[in-house]
Amino acid sequence: MTTHYFDHAATSPMRQAAIDAFVEHAGTLNPGGQYGSGRHAGSVLSDARETVARLLGTDPVEVVFTASGTEADNLAIQGLYAASELNRVVSTPIEHSAVRDTVNALDGAEVALLPVTGTGHVSELSALDEPAALATCMWANNETGAIQPVAEIVARAAAAGTPTHIDAVQVVGKLPVDFHALGATTLAASAHKFGGPRGVGLLLARRSPAPTAILHGGGQERGIRPGTVNVAGAASLAAALEESVREMETEQSRIRELRDRLRERILGQVDDVTVNTTEPALPSHVHLSFPGAEGDSMIMLLDSLGIEASTGSACSSGVNRASHVLLAMGVDEHDARGSLRLTLGRTTTAEDVDYLADRITEVVSRARAAGMAA
Amino acid sequence: MTTHYFDHAATSPMRQAAIDAFVEHAGTLNPGGQYGSGRHAGSVLSDARETVARLLGTDPVEVVFTASGTEADNLAIQGLYAASELNRVVSTPIEHSAVRDTVNALDGAEVALLPVTGTGHVSELSALDEPAALATCMWANNETGAIQPVAEIVARAAAAGTPTHIDAVQVVGKLPVDFHALGATTLAASAHKFGGPRGVGLLLARRSPAPTAILHGGGQERGIRPGTVNVAGAASLAAALEESVREMETEQSRIRELRDRLRERILGQVDDVTVNTTEPALPSHVHLSFPGAEGDSMIMLLDSLGIEASTGSACSSGVNRASHVLLAMGVDEHDARGSLRLTLGRTTTAEDVDYLADRITEVVSRARAAGMAA
Repeated sequence: MTTHYFDHAATSPMRQAAIDAFVEHAGTLNPGGQYGSGRHAGSVLSDARETVARLLGTDPVEVVFTASGTEADNLAIQGLYAASELNRVVSTPIEHSAVRDTVNALDGAEVALLPVTGTGHVSELSALDEPAALATCMWANNETGAIQPVAEIVARAAAAGTPTHIDAVQVVGKLPVDFHALGATTLAASAHKFGGPRGVGLLLARRSPAPTAILHGGGQERGIRPGTVNVAGAASLAAALEESVREMETEQSRIRELRDRLRERILGQVDDVTVNTTEPALPSHVHLSFPGAEGDSMIMLLDSLGIEASTGSACSSGVNRASHVLLAMGVDEHDARGSLRLTLGRTTTAEDVDYLADRITEVVSRARAAGMAA
Repeated sequence: MTTHYFDHAATSPMRQAAIDAFVEHAGTLNPGGQYGSGRHAGSVLSDARETVARLLGTDPVEVVFTASGTEADNLAIQGLYAASELNRVVSTPIEHSAVRDTVNALDGAEVALLPVTGTGHVSELSALDEPAALATCMWANNETGAIQPVAEIVARAAAAGTPTHIDAVQVVGKLPVDFHALGATTLAASAHKFGGPRGVGLLLARRSPAPTAILHGGGQERGIRPGTVNVAGAASLAAALEESVREMETEQSRIRELRDRLRERILGQVDDVTVNTTEPALPSHVHLSFPGAEGDSMIMLLDSLGIEASTGSACSSGVNRASHVLLAMGVDEHDARGSLRLTLGRTTTAEDVDYLADRITEVVSRARAAGMAA
């Protein structure tokens, strides 16, 4: 059965250019070696670092290759907290678990959450006026796609002398990112969200204040992320980022048109549906609530038709509970449990959209009937 | 220029089977997805986990895929320390920086080091008789190759109720490993040491006592190592391990013969040389001191001849200082600075050995002359 993939926000297929770069550089050895093959590996790594720096508006020395967005978030948040003498941390109630659970695990931290509106956007920033060890906010929400006012957050935090970490996992490769213009202290990204390999992430980290090391070892990546560097992975990430940025304008506009068509077709035929994605938002996301239908039932029914989607954060799939993001937006728990996140990407076609739109009414009806029977 | 690579202990070229497995599974998506492609990714990941478990004498649930040996060491050591109410830690003075620096960074830890003999073997184990949060010891030293009495260490620690972490980065794929028979609590390995990809490691972790989570996020890998799992990397690691174990007996005996021939040829022609590798040791290592020659000078001269080697731990190359391992063995600092670590591996041939042996006398003479001139 042909599958129709609507879970690009969880992970996106590797680009051929990224696979080719991995294979081309799979033979690279240790960039720490003081000899020919070590220098070659070092030069491939430098090239990758320079490409990333050029595409994301930063200096090569500020590019730290990590193993994932999750690791980048942990190294930044735990590291900035350890580097500070303050124990106050500002965050939001809609962060990904890589940020939320990391903030909640900080020893002795007093956490202030910036409130969000019913559309899932951070609104009131006054908690940033009191100095803190760090402020952390996602650039765009992984569930709804809502784009947050990160420039204002960074500026407001900076005015109080607070460093800011931005979780840009959903944004890098989709929207223009200029790290220096943004002014954040650290920024996390993940290669597999923009067609790079799984197992490779990025932390952009200013020279000062730099995160204190959380993992210890051979001092690689400025000591922030020790361990033999995955050079082929870094080159593969850089190749995927290069292609993502080159295609960004046309591709994101193509995806936005498909997303709008999908949303309009669903709204035009299904009764009692709420759209939880409100502008400003990523062009790739449409998050919907169908009260009376269980999210998990819809996912199973869609799967049986070859349609792949999720109820929200893929990382918490398998656990049937209402999303903390929707609850923070004030969505009723009953409605929140009937949610579907459809995220489009590079491989999505008009045929995928129509295939889903042609079947959604029946899926929702069956899920609602199952819910009533239960 | 053809290169002759003698730094396999730092990193070893990827096996073709590992590259093929990566490429075959580069298209796998998110094993957390509740749909066809997610189940497929989950099944590839399960297969990799079962292969690793079968080859290393453990249960699949005890296999945690990490991003490196360094990360595995950190998650185990920091995690077991956090899980304990004790603050005493037992280690050795010859650990890799991924263990040594991690132990030294433990908040409030009182560290006892097991002494080592002049041959670089842990000898006196009585420090293990007093209960500790954990004991940690490498299975084989990365510089000299000396194999440590890990079974005795694990048993002696267990008698005091102390969990043990074994850094087996140099051993997995080279010597038989049976995690359950060994009885350790956790064990770390790194894929690129046995022909797998850089950027993938392993932590074997008993169900109890389990390390407390150090990194936070989506709960993957039993919550010990969160982040979208690198399925293609895990499959690639498993393929490399499968081949390593299958070829182990013949390959390690071939490598031992080449290593012995190299050592004998060097001893037969160079004056004033000390062999720092003493049995029991890995068949791949020969670590030598040439008093009066600077290690870095020898590396540079060898490099100019197309011979790639290191002075010791690749992770500390570029820093011209005497190895902490040699100093712990009681080697004089002057001698320790004139060290060369030659490590053989899968791609090493008799021609490589003879090429190096034919040139070592002149390299050492020139390095000694440079040392006298300086």
